[in-house]
Amino acid sequence: MSLHGEYDTDNIFAKILRGELPAVKVFEDDETLAFMDVFPQSDGHVLVIPKARSRNILDTAPDVLVDVISKTQTLAKAVEKALSPDGIIITQFNGAPAGQTVFHLHFHIIPRYDDKTMGDHAKGQMADMGKLNLLADKIKAAI
Amino acid sequence: MSLHGEYDTDNIFAKILRGELPAVKVFEDDETLAFMDVFPQSDGHVLVIPKARSRNILDTAPDVLVDVISKTQTLAKAVEKALSPDGIIITQFNGAPAGQTVFHLHFHIIPRYDDKTMGDHAKGQMADMGKLNLLADKIKAAI
Repeated sequence: MSLHGEYDTDNIFAKILRGELPAVKVFEDDETLAFMDVFPQSDGHVLVIPKARSRNILDTAPDVLVDVISKTQTLAKAVEKALSPDGIIITQFNGAPAGQTVFHLHFHIIPRYDDKTMGDHAKGQMADMGKLNLLADKIKAAI
Repeated sequence: MSLHGEYDTDNIFAKILRGELPAVKVFEDDETLAFMDVFPQSDGHVLVIPKARSRNILDTAPDVLVDVISKTQTLAKAVEKALSPDGIIITQFNGAPAGQTVFHLHFHIIPRYDDKTMGDHAKGQMADMGKLNLLADKIKAAI
């Protein structure tokens, strides 16, 4: 997939937004949805997406981007409060050669812990749903 | 360095902002500075920083963060127009365990090219200044 092209309305985040696929949500309002990554690179790996359609940072409306980064900040603070990681990586991939696998704009919030190595997203194991729900509850309570 | 603590006014980005260290600038206004990373992970690796002081996304004022991401979008578009990468990684590290090495908030814009592997930032070679200036000129012309 190149950096330019049409938005695919059947991408998995579009399906989550339409309620056609489940997600372990941590935050939702009219503009934004945040949910747990089911292939987490570490405990507390959260994705923040706009409800508006865009593929990547190049075709995202400026006001949508501003809203998403503001919510990403709010969620990063909640992740820090809830899970006390030693560091937090914020990342956003544009195009498959950059590591993007779902072509709907999203920001990753990836906590880092001194005593744990970070998992490989592409080779990741699907998370245990019980554990994911517990982490989500902690983060929600910290927002 | 933990995620919390005092802002160190002697970090290298603070020195660049005060004009005490040089930088190959691509964009500057009252709020923001963007310049070429001197240890680039790929051709066209740009850093975007606010002029306001903050260590990371946890202690950045919301309006400052919004401004920085907006400028990051503008610069990402310019990098794409100037250099035609196949992908672009946007990343922002919080805390040393997350890979942060300079404790002044910054967003990385890292172009990815299909035919080139990405360099390791920590082990990176300092860029050739002539080449860096040429890349900066191309990006500036595309803003």
